[in-house]
Amino acid sequence: MFEQLGLIGCGLMGGSFALALKRAGLVKRVVGYSKSPSTTERARQMGVIDLEAPSALLAVSGADIVLLAIPVAATEATFKAIKHLLTPQTLVMDVGSTKRDVVDAARRVLREQVGSFVPAHPITGREVSGVEHADADLYMGKQVILTPIERTLTAHLQKAIEVWTALGCHVQKMAPEAHDAAFAAVSHLPHLIAFALMNGITGQAGGQEYLSLAGPGFRDFTRIAASDPHMWRDIMVANREELLAQSQIFQRSLQAMEALIASGNADALEQQIGQASQTRAHWRMTSGKSGK
Amino acid sequence: MFEQLGLIGCGLMGGSFALALKRAGLVKRVVGYSKSPSTTERARQMGVIDLEAPSALLAVSGADIVLLAIPVAATEATFKAIKHLLTPQTLVMDVGSTKRDVVDAARRVLREQVGSFVPAHPITGREVSGVEHADADLYMGKQVILTPIERTLTAHLQKAIEVWTALGCHVQKMAPEAHDAAFAAVSHLPHLIAFALMNGITGQAGGQEYLSLAGPGFRDFTRIAASDPHMWRDIMVANREELLAQSQIFQRSLQAMEALIASGNADALEQQIGQASQTRAHWRMTSGKSGK
Repeated sequence: MFEQLGLIGCGLMGGSFALALKRAGLVKRVVGYSKSPSTTERARQMGVIDLEAPSALLAVSGADIVLLAIPVAATEATFKAIKHLLTPQTLVMDVGSTKRDVVDAARRVLREQVGSFVPAHPITGREVSGVEHADADLYMGKQVILTPIERTLTAHLQKAIEVWTALGCHVQKMAPEAHDAAFAAVSHLPHLIAFALMNGITGQAGGQEYLSLAGPGFRDFTRIAASDPHMWRDIMVANREELLAQSQIFQRSLQAMEALIASGNADALEQQIGQASQTRAHWRMTSGKSGK
Repeated sequence: MFEQLGLIGCGLMGGSFALALKRAGLVKRVVGYSKSPSTTERARQMGVIDLEAPSALLAVSGADIVLLAIPVAATEATFKAIKHLLTPQTLVMDVGSTKRDVVDAARRVLREQVGSFVPAHPITGREVSGVEHADADLYMGKQVILTPIERTLTAHLQKAIEVWTALGCHVQKMAPEAHDAAFAAVSHLPHLIAFALMNGITGQAGGQEYLSLAGPGFRDFTRIAASDPHMWRDIMVANREELLAQSQIFQRSLQAMEALIASGNADALEQQIGQASQTRAHWRMTSGKSGK
């Protein structure tokens, strides 16, 4: 389907995309660039990429598909670095966890070429990062949200849908703003809470002992607290308005439950917990047909 | 080791204890009582108990080991119901997630017999409840916190340690107050947060759509939100002071991060996230030697 993937960012997400695309037989050659030359070298040694490019611009040279797999705050600078070698035929995508800021950067920098860019957010990841964790199965069975704008070219959008579908993903389209509100609620806020909980515990005199007593519930609840600090810093700053709004909603909900606990209103408290418990018990993660 | 287990509460925790004790060859006979006769009947049909008792008192009759596996708020009434048939030789334990309230109830009701009671909290559980989920492996490799008081008989404490150790548990002793502070931080607060997060999301106009987009991070973070409402209501009310204190510490930590996000102080935010991420990445769940 493609001759050459220009991969900018050879970490977990980018490396896994390259491996998945190769395994599906969708690309002949992968040219990779990472900010850190040692990452790019390791990616080549691992067979994740075929050629190391010394710059983002050179990674794009000759590519008919380009993937930006970088912290969202680096998107604008990266578009600036590559735009001179983008052709109208090049399909450009990203994998960022926020979409409005990425779309804004694309409009500002790509201008008349913005139609080649199909913003994408695959709902997957690991609490570990780096090309050494790259996995051809990372995207299999997962949701991918595409947030095209009015200027996105239909042909490119269609091609993007085909690529992700071929990787086993369940593709969904949304407006960038709707995407950012939803993920503030179900992803960015849970991460923020998990980080804050960890720091709240370790800031206490007995914190280390408390941690040594924690069990399986704590283990699962805080798994996302081990996520990459730089990446999450960027996501939280990029989506700050939606995130802070969701955090307010959460704190109001928490404080309502605190009031029931403080007053010993056991029946109303049980009702609140029951509602949460029912919702969670019936929730199922959406996954594609080829999901595992 | 024991002739007869008197099991009061034949749910997940109690049923699993009976199965584990039987498998270890530590008990000849299990007499069970549950508030709901259908639960007791199912427990007998499943072979979790050998005999159904029509009351808590009759479950205790003839038992040399008694386990209370009931919501913590029912502890005092249960002690009242059984105390007339307790002998100084009977080892009595519970599995409650809070310990100060349970110890207080034991002092008030059992009086001179309080020395037979060894308060226990096994750090295990499931987000599902009921005897149908009883599992002889539930306690294997898990921590059990015993919170003896000055009047606890050494012989009973020693026997309790032997029982839990024989079930594959890693046994630790703590004061009831220290236990409650620690578990407010690493268990009760995470549950409260998970419940509040679910209700905060479903209370919004787009909440159901948001939930449909959530991925693996959300799945793990909210797993404990599906826990039993009645049990968790009791825990939160019983340990309200420690829980509310921990919730305040958490909210201060959250609000400090919010301030960094709002002001776009990316470096300080990354430092905060990095600290949480490091702590979580190095954390390991304590488990017994026979842990799996």
